[in-house]
Amino acid sequence: MFDLIEKLKEHLRHASVSTDSSFKQGMAGSRTFLSDLFSEMGLSVEIVDTDLHPIVLAKRGGDPKWPHVIIYGHYDVQPADPVELWKTEPFSPIEKDGRIYARGAADNKGPQMAHIAAVAELLEENPELPLRITFLIEGEEEIGSPSLLPFLENRREELSEADLVLLSDTLSPSAEQLVVTVGLRGIVVMDVEFEGPNSDLHSGLHGGAVYNPVQALCEVCASLHDEGNRVTIPGFYDGVTEVEDWEREELERLGSSESEYKRFLGLDSLHSLDGYTPFEAIRYLPTLEFNGIGGGYQGEGSKTIVPAKAMTKISCRLVGSQDPEHVGELVKQAILDRTPEGIKVRVEMGHKGAPYLVVPPGKPNSPGDMPARLKQAFEATEKAISSEFDKPPLFLREGGSIPIIADIKNVLALDSVMIGLFLPEDNLHAPNESMNLEVLKKGIRVSKKVLEAIAGG
Amino acid sequence: MFDLIEKLKEHLRHASVSTDSSFKQGMAGSRTFLSDLFSEMGLSVEIVDTDLHPIVLAKRGGDPKWPHVIIYGHYDVQPADPVELWKTEPFSPIEKDGRIYARGAADNKGPQMAHIAAVAELLEENPELPLRITFLIEGEEEIGSPSLLPFLENRREELSEADLVLLSDTLSPSAEQLVVTVGLRGIVVMDVEFEGPNSDLHSGLHGGAVYNPVQALCEVCASLHDEGNRVTIPGFYDGVTEVEDWEREELERLGSSESEYKRFLGLDSLHSLDGYTPFEAIRYLPTLEFNGIGGGYQGEGSKTIVPAKAMTKISCRLVGSQDPEHVGELVKQAILDRTPEGIKVRVEMGHKGAPYLVVPPGKPNSPGDMPARLKQAFEATEKAISSEFDKPPLFLREGGSIPIIADIKNVLALDSVMIGLFLPEDNLHAPNESMNLEVLKKGIRVSKKVLEAIAGG
Repeated sequence: MFDLIEKLKEHLRHASVSTDSSFKQGMAGSRTFLSDLFSEMGLSVEIVDTDLHPIVLAKRGGDPKWPHVIIYGHYDVQPADPVELWKTEPFSPIEKDGRIYARGAADNKGPQMAHIAAVAELLEENPELPLRITFLIEGEEEIGSPSLLPFLENRREELSEADLVLLSDTLSPSAEQLVVTVGLRGIVVMDVEFEGPNSDLHSGLHGGAVYNPVQALCEVCASLHDEGNRVTIPGFYDGVTEVEDWEREELERLGSSESEYKRFLGLDSLHSLDGYTPFEAIRYLPTLEFNGIGGGYQGEGSKTIVPAKAMTKISCRLVGSQDPEHVGELVKQAILDRTPEGIKVRVEMGHKGAPYLVVPPGKPNSPGDMPARLKQAFEATEKAISSEFDKPPLFLREGGSIPIIADIKNVLALDSVMIGLFLPEDNLHAPNESMNLEVLKKGIRVSKKVLEAIAGG
Repeated sequence: MFDLIEKLKEHLRHASVSTDSSFKQGMAGSRTFLSDLFSEMGLSVEIVDTDLHPIVLAKRGGDPKWPHVIIYGHYDVQPADPVELWKTEPFSPIEKDGRIYARGAADNKGPQMAHIAAVAELLEENPELPLRITFLIEGEEEIGSPSLLPFLENRREELSEADLVLLSDTLSPSAEQLVVTVGLRGIVVMDVEFEGPNSDLHSGLHGGAVYNPVQALCEVCASLHDEGNRVTIPGFYDGVTEVEDWEREELERLGSSESEYKRFLGLDSLHSLDGYTPFEAIRYLPTLEFNGIGGGYQGEGSKTIVPAKAMTKISCRLVGSQDPEHVGELVKQAILDRTPEGIKVRVEMGHKGAPYLVVPPGKPNSPGDMPARLKQAFEATEKAISSEFDKPPLFLREGGSIPIIADIKNVLALDSVMIGLFLPEDNLHAPNESMNLEVLKKGIRVSKKVLEAIAGG
């Protein structure tokens, strides 16, 4: 077996930021790393070209009657910005107090490594293990996986004969309480640009005569939520479904404390849609969020101008049967309708993905026709986590989005078993991201037990 | 006489950006340039230290009974941002089609050079000219002249025995129609910072539970103007005085065309306070303007976060008896009061300056006790401009701010004769700033005539 920590560090040194074209080298390095690792493990590796970042596909074949698991992961990471808030270099992994600090440590290179290590150990211990395994590691998760859907459609025949997908790219609330995620929010993102005068203007010579694009953008953005934090766009909430009773019970068992959550975030108060707790809002409600805003002079000191332009980046999280395309259009139209005279507006749609839901076995609304191997995987997951973490997992919907999960369901008709291996304190998408190594090691043992159960079933 | 164009280019090569501490070298280079030039002209030069950027003071003394003119200018310039919109290098002056392109060409190095060249020629032609001249060239005009008030107070005795101040740091509407500015708006600027969670958050894991600081900032900023573009802060308009009839007549003689103004700005529509034309609004009304806004991710692609922070830069232009300190406090308090729970807010006041007004001779409300040499200067200015530009100047209040003019009035009890030598198409405070060389050359002749008239009076 390879040295887990050293291998993970090696992967983390590749700055595989997919959203920024200046990180091409880090993306290529990450692919080579994975390709070499899978080859060492005896898997056959294919680098599948796409329009942007290639997919790493690694296979252990075998008897067609053997069960077949697809293990999903992504080798791309979020940008490290704001870099000045990192205490260590984002792409120079540091091991400290049982954690590894680096961009991508938790999202997704650490958890992904748990499954890779599990497979490596299993095959070393039992080279005859009756299980077919396909690693599908993509490079565009952080930008909405635009190439994965065409890939799945191209390979539909080959991949759809698998039994299920296994992955760890979701959150657990603590190192003691794991969550198996059974639902994900959808997403749609867009860039909005406001343009006023054809150039930045002297605010003394022209101030008072023209609509300031920053002011106009603020006014339009401010109009998108009412005082109860409800999105004011007609039709926005169409398709939002109410939560099942057993889901509310699992959420209660989670025992989240608002005061602890506030302390964790450094906030005096939380702010969710009227009528929902913050924890319900995260999982069961859609959002319209401003990811960034910019315009005019942001440097040191002052620059007394009327800016020529202003921009904002918006993302919406979606639930139930909300359609990302449709919601994106609603938001775009609302922005266009509300932009005042004197301002040119451009709304450019970005990536999107549908919401997802699987009801696990043993619940009042579990489907009677769940495939046996999927059922087995869920049951083995519950058992393995209960044993390794001394506590059964909770089956919860989550606030994040992995559009690929809905795509896999739609194209391959496969459900996913999502074992949460990163934690709130891991600082995903934020400075000083890290991975808890104890959770990582337990995760390997859980993955091994689940894969063994599927193989033996 | 020195080569005017070469000397101006030499000055423009010094990147004297006062607001950004990384341009210290450009500031120092600009001072050395001025110091050398004044020395060559036979003036005695003093570099007066201040808390930030030193003042260049150059004097031609003489008989205490001679008239004494202070010629004001500033050697600092605005930042060149956004640099990518410049067609040439901002600090590599280029002469093209009768213009010089560079940051600071029009604001203020070009117009300032007109007076320097005028004095150089006058002294060459008549070394015995009975006129005392003090050049006062400061380095902090673009950041609100914080050191000039203490300087004036320190040198009150020496400077207040002058008769008037002459300067060119104001706008004329065209190369054919010069304006003598008789009023300036005051200013107060501030930085506003909103802070939410202690770190950027994953918008999937936390979106819906916390108040997004960008959203909160947009809501507060949007609340500061009503639909008629009136500032909604109680007391904001206190002290705003209505305009005199003769001022309205001068403005009409200006003959500004809204359609031409729109074409110049590249706008379909203008946007002034209800009840005022855009041209009235610029000169006679206060504003609350957003000079910049920022927060979260502004780079390529998307980053699905709830940003930890957001900021905006605000400047207010003031008129009449509005007090910058008081208005600044009103705006600050309104922002504090309107900031929602869950957001920490910080408002930091920046530079400020009072509004200014002098009523020139020959108007219905001209003061009867105007000092003879000031009256003479105004009359000579009207005559010189009428002759050099074939059209008498208009006496107008202007929308810009030169806080030093109100300070000079308050501390030294001196009024200023402000001859506008830059034009709307000169792109002040914007990319591709330039100076019209024909106006510059006529400006030299006007300055010579005015100085000769004062000397001979």
